[in-house]
Amino acid sequence: MGRITTRTKVLAINDDDARRREDVLAAEEPLELRVDGKPLAVTMRTPGDDIELAHGFLLGEGVIASREDVATARYCDSVDESGRNTYNVLDLTLSPGVPSPTVGVERNFYTTSSCGICGKAALDAVRTRTRFDPASDPVPVDPAVLAGLPDALRQRQRVFAATGGLHAAALFDHHGKLHVVREDVGRHNAVDKAIGWAVLQGRVPLAGAGLLVSGRASFELVQKAAMAGIPVLAAVSAPSSLAVELAAEQGMTLIGFLRGKSMNVYTGHHRLTGTLAQPAHRSASRGPAR
Amino acid sequence: MGRITTRTKVLAINDDDARRREDVLAAEEPLELRVDGKPLAVTMRTPGDDIELAHGFLLGEGVIASREDVATARYCDSVDESGRNTYNVLDLTLSPGVPSPTVGVERNFYTTSSCGICGKAALDAVRTRTRFDPASDPVPVDPAVLAGLPDALRQRQRVFAATGGLHAAALFDHHGKLHVVREDVGRHNAVDKAIGWAVLQGRVPLAGAGLLVSGRASFELVQKAAMAGIPVLAAVSAPSSLAVELAAEQGMTLIGFLRGKSMNVYTGHHRLTGTLAQPAHRSASRGPAR
Repeated sequence: MGRITTRTKVLAINDDDARRREDVLAAEEPLELRVDGKPLAVTMRTPGDDIELAHGFLLGEGVIASREDVATARYCDSVDESGRNTYNVLDLTLSPGVPSPTVGVERNFYTTSSCGICGKAALDAVRTRTRFDPASDPVPVDPAVLAGLPDALRQRQRVFAATGGLHAAALFDHHGKLHVVREDVGRHNAVDKAIGWAVLQGRVPLAGAGLLVSGRASFELVQKAAMAGIPVLAAVSAPSSLAVELAAEQGMTLIGFLRGKSMNVYTGHHRLTGTLAQPAHRSASRGPAR
Repeated sequence: MGRITTRTKVLAINDDDARRREDVLAAEEPLELRVDGKPLAVTMRTPGDDIELAHGFLLGEGVIASREDVATARYCDSVDESGRNTYNVLDLTLSPGVPSPTVGVERNFYTTSSCGICGKAALDAVRTRTRFDPASDPVPVDPAVLAGLPDALRQRQRVFAATGGLHAAALFDHHGKLHVVREDVGRHNAVDKAIGWAVLQGRVPLAGAGLLVSGRASFELVQKAAMAGIPVLAAVSAPSSLAVELAAEQGMTLIGFLRGKSMNVYTGHHRLTGTLAQPAHRSASRGPAR
C-alpha cells in the first residue's frame, strides 16, 4: 500500500539557520477492527501488516488462541467519499465455537472489578486469562546474546531510520536471531504485529522465544507477552512497577535498560547463563550455592 | 500517597560485572474513571494528580468544557480485600444539564464512521467536536524561546530523573515559562494531567499557551491540545503524518525534534517571530516578500 511513510515540507531550524526541506513522516491512520460484524476496537496505527496486528491483538485480549480460531480476515470493501478503499477497516469472523468478544473489551477489561481495583486485581485478571505458562519455559538467557539485540534491531528498523518516529518490536531466540521485526507509531501495535506474525505462522505459544521492544516495558506489554506464552521480555528503556510485578507473577524474565553490554535483570534470574551466571548467583544468594 | 515510585531489587549487568542493587521504578496502576455512576474508562497511570487527569481526559473527549461542568470528584470509598482504599477508582458527577458520555467513548470514537474510515474522517470528527478555535490565536512563537524548553522540562522531571521511565508534558507561555509540568508512565496521561490542571484553574481555553511533550507527537496528542484550545504543540521527538495533518487543519503551530536550538516547524509558520522569522519567510516564498 506504500503508506508506511509520507512526505511533508518542513522548516528546519538549526541555530541561526532556517531552511525549507522535505521531511519523511511515519504514517498514522486509524484501523477499525470488526469481529463477527461488530466494531471491537479502533487503533491509531501505521498501515501495513494489519492482518498480523489483528491476530496479535485478538490473542492478547484472549479472544483467540491460534490462527485456527479465525475463519476469515479481509478488508471491508466499502469506499470513502472519493471512491477509494482506505483499507482502514478489517472484518474478521471467528471459527465456529469461538465466542465473540464483548464489545469494548480492550478498555473495559478491568471495569468488572470492584472498587478495590488495584495492581493485584489486574494481575489476577491476567493470570486467569493466560492460556499458556511462560513460567515453565526453561529457555536459557545469555547476557552476551542479549547485548547484541539492540544493534540488530536498529539495523532492521527501516522506517525508523527514515523518520525517527517509530516504535519497534521483535521476536528473538536464545541464539540472538531476530525472527521478525515490526514497526509502528504505537508501541502496542508493534508488539501485536510481531506476535500476530507468530500466530499466523502457527508458532504460538512462543516457547523459547523472547520479545524485544525499542522503548519502555509497561504492564500491557508484559501482558501481551504472557498471553502469547513468551518467557522473556527485553526492553531498551525502563519497566514500570506493574510490569515488574506481572513478570514476576508470570515467571518471566524481564530485562530493562538493555544497552549493549549493560542491562538490568528485574525478574527470572534463574534463566541466566553464560559467564555472568555464576557471579550473579553468588551475589544473589547469601546461603549455600545451589 | 507516595506511590509515584517503587523500589525493587535488580541484577545490574555491565560488561563482565554483575551486581545486585536497588532500582527505582515509575509506579503504574490502573485508574478507573466513573462518570455519573457508570464506568467510562480505565487507564494505566502513575498515581497522583488523578483529579487533574480526570478533568483533562473529559475535556479531551468533549464531555466537559470547564471545571463548572463537573459537580463532584472523589475517590470511591470502598476497600480492597486487605481493607485498604487503593485510590484507583474515581467517581465524578457532572453538573445539571451536562449530558453523560456514552460508555466507551474513548475507543469507540471512530466506530460510528462508515467503512470509509480514514484520516479525513478522523479530522472531520475532531473539527466538529472542538469547542475552541486555536487557529485564531495570534500567540508569537520565537524559536529562541522554544530552544530553552527541553532543558527546562528535564530539570523539572523529578520522577524521570529517578527512574528514567516517565513521559512528561508541560504548558508554557510565549516567554518560555513552564506553568505546569506533569509526569506519567503514559504519554496521554501526562498531557491529560497538565491540561486538567488548567481546567481546574479555570484557564481553558488555553489561549496563548503551548503544550510541550517529552516524546513524539501523535494524532491523539494534537487532538487533546486542540480540544483545550492550545495553539502551539512542541515535541522533543517526531510527529506522525496524521498529527501534522490535524495541526494544519486546526491552524496550530506544530514543532518536532525540538532539541535545543535545532527543531522542525511542520505547521503554523505564520506565528514565528524573532531573528529567524525573516530568513524563514524569505526562503519559504519564491514570490515577493510579504
